[in-house]
Amino acid sequence: MSSIPDRLGASRLRVRTVEILPDAVVLIDQLALPQHEKYVRCVSWRDVAGRIADMTVRGAPAIGVSAAAGIALAARAAAAEHPDDPAAFRAALEQAASGLLATRPTAVNLRWALDEMRAEWSGCREAPSGCAARLLARAQAILLDDVERCLRIGEHGAALFGAGARILTHCNAGALATAGYGTALGVIRSVFAAHPDISVLVDETRPWLQGARLTAWELGVEGIPYHVISDNMAGHFISRGEVDGVVVGADRIAANGDTANKIGTYTVSVLAREHGVPFYVAAPLSTVDLSVASGAGIPIEERAADEVTSFRGLAVAPAGARARHPAFDVTPAANITAIITEAGVLRAPYGEALAAACGVGGCAP
Amino acid sequence: MSSIPDRLGASRLRVRTVEILPDAVVLIDQLALPQHEKYVRCVSWRDVAGRIADMTVRGAPAIGVSAAAGIALAARAAAAEHPDDPAAFRAALEQAASGLLATRPTAVNLRWALDEMRAEWSGCREAPSGCAARLLARAQAILLDDVERCLRIGEHGAALFGAGARILTHCNAGALATAGYGTALGVIRSVFAAHPDISVLVDETRPWLQGARLTAWELGVEGIPYHVISDNMAGHFISRGEVDGVVVGADRIAANGDTANKIGTYTVSVLAREHGVPFYVAAPLSTVDLSVASGAGIPIEERAADEVTSFRGLAVAPAGARARHPAFDVTPAANITAIITEAGVLRAPYGEALAAACGVGGCAP
Repeated sequence: MSSIPDRLGASRLRVRTVEILPDAVVLIDQLALPQHEKYVRCVSWRDVAGRIADMTVRGAPAIGVSAAAGIALAARAAAAEHPDDPAAFRAALEQAASGLLATRPTAVNLRWALDEMRAEWSGCREAPSGCAARLLARAQAILLDDVERCLRIGEHGAALFGAGARILTHCNAGALATAGYGTALGVIRSVFAAHPDISVLVDETRPWLQGARLTAWELGVEGIPYHVISDNMAGHFISRGEVDGVVVGADRIAANGDTANKIGTYTVSVLAREHGVPFYVAAPLSTVDLSVASGAGIPIEERAADEVTSFRGLAVAPAGARARHPAFDVTPAANITAIITEAGVLRAPYGEALAAACGVGGCAP
Repeated sequence: MSSIPDRLGASRLRVRTVEILPDAVVLIDQLALPQHEKYVRCVSWRDVAGRIADMTVRGAPAIGVSAAAGIALAARAAAAEHPDDPAAFRAALEQAASGLLATRPTAVNLRWALDEMRAEWSGCREAPSGCAARLLARAQAILLDDVERCLRIGEHGAALFGAGARILTHCNAGALATAGYGTALGVIRSVFAAHPDISVLVDETRPWLQGARLTAWELGVEGIPYHVISDNMAGHFISRGEVDGVVVGADRIAANGDTANKIGTYTVSVLAREHGVPFYVAAPLSTVDLSVASGAGIPIEERAADEVTSFRGLAVAPAGARARHPAFDVTPAANITAIITEAGVLRAPYGEALAAACGVGGCAP
């Protein structure tokens, strides 16, 4: 736990998603959870890219931090290979950044983190080894910054729920989706600290089951009461008045507040609005992409069909079955009650609120 | 195929869900599909009840037919045990009916079929062996009647979709959910016969995956183009204009048109209405329960939590995870564009339309 200072609440972080060492990036293996808590060690940016693509690490902020860490590894290798050739050093970093960026198209935090790292190496006038050291420090700073943002999101969001709140969440926007503490689960952690009688409904979140596997695991570690439900049960419980509010994370927020998040989020937003239940998005400002006017401009990753037709190698559909697999969907701003950021709780009209918050700094360009 | 006369389209029935023999009821094992097509042989009503409870056979009309067949087996056994004691014979049948009724609380076809069988044995003045023969014939007639109703539902529903229609369905309301041909899938089969360019989006339907396992299998057998999707993807495709209509089955329709069907149906209905997409329920009149005024009066079965937290013995959530498992939900009549029955396509106000259709006969009492 030593790399997270206690002012950032290290004592409150029981889950370590990403650890950045000088010669390696250590990731908790999210494919093995919840049955096995094990860690994988990446020693090159290609290792990191592979782990992002295969979802060993997932969650928009965690992907961003991991990509920054991948650049640090690329810098270490490039400085060894090109100790006296800054141009070759930078070319190697550009190649690594391109490879890392190509792993997942939807989350903008990935691009944001790579841009942060690029600003560091572009501005570095030292020899490659010096720049590599700066890039390592910058990646570690991005990690700490992510934890700090999550803690602030949790503090801002805590006031939105009271005693006994029954909160529904989709996917995993927890410590595992970030460098620690989480966004949506950061809010839930903070609410729970104030009101230990809350309870959580956890959408299992097919096809990858991030809710059943990861969110349930995190809530269990914290002792927060929860029930797992199939995604298609959310409407039933919302319609029966058994949900007081919804809180989810985000992979990219457009300038107008439209929000891309894990597939199924849009459906939950429609159900919440239908029944007058508040629907909150919790995300750091690095998730905001002011270069995209609306959700229509956000690329939606389509993943392999066999991720839908099989589960851990077990077929769930006939041999040869065809499937579709959009990994994300877009929730229109009109369905969002508020966006909980490290800068505060933003309300509609989101265009103005986001521009103002981003003006203070921290959004994707 | 011999037990289905060709006037009922035997040549169009490639799937045999329930076969009623004098000494046994043969069920296709819906737990083994789609990987294995195998059949189980029930020789007592308790066997049949066990197979309804464990979902070897499922789908409201198929459950009704199977329960009737279970009574025929009970009658054969009771006639052997009490050849000269009609009172003991009828008491044994009452016990079997109670046991069969207790297996699944939501589908009303189960009660309807048992009531049909009870009317037969109550009115029978012959010796138990004669009454047992009548009950066997009655069960077989209920099976044929179910197929005939499905074929009519298909014919009535076919006119609701045109060339190139992109139809979404939830769960399995197919041949496997009936004695043959299917209700919602009966409509799709009929549309496909007229328009071979249609396509189907199949909600996988967690937690039992009846869509991915059974509907995909049936559509594959028929050569009808389809894609399986996770339930949480329906909103994405509907919102993008990629669905022209929804058709689902029903487990019980209240007097006002509120419809209980597989968990998740309600959510699809909300999404369809949100985007102006027609939402059709296809069901025989034996699914209508005029004794229940509205959906609030329909009992919703809550099944075991471990059916949500594991899949075929493979855990999908942490050890000890708690889960909820309502097996059905209620779609309000206001979300239903039409109810497709063997008596025609019924439209709102459903109270009047259902009363008129039931007046002709065939509804649950």
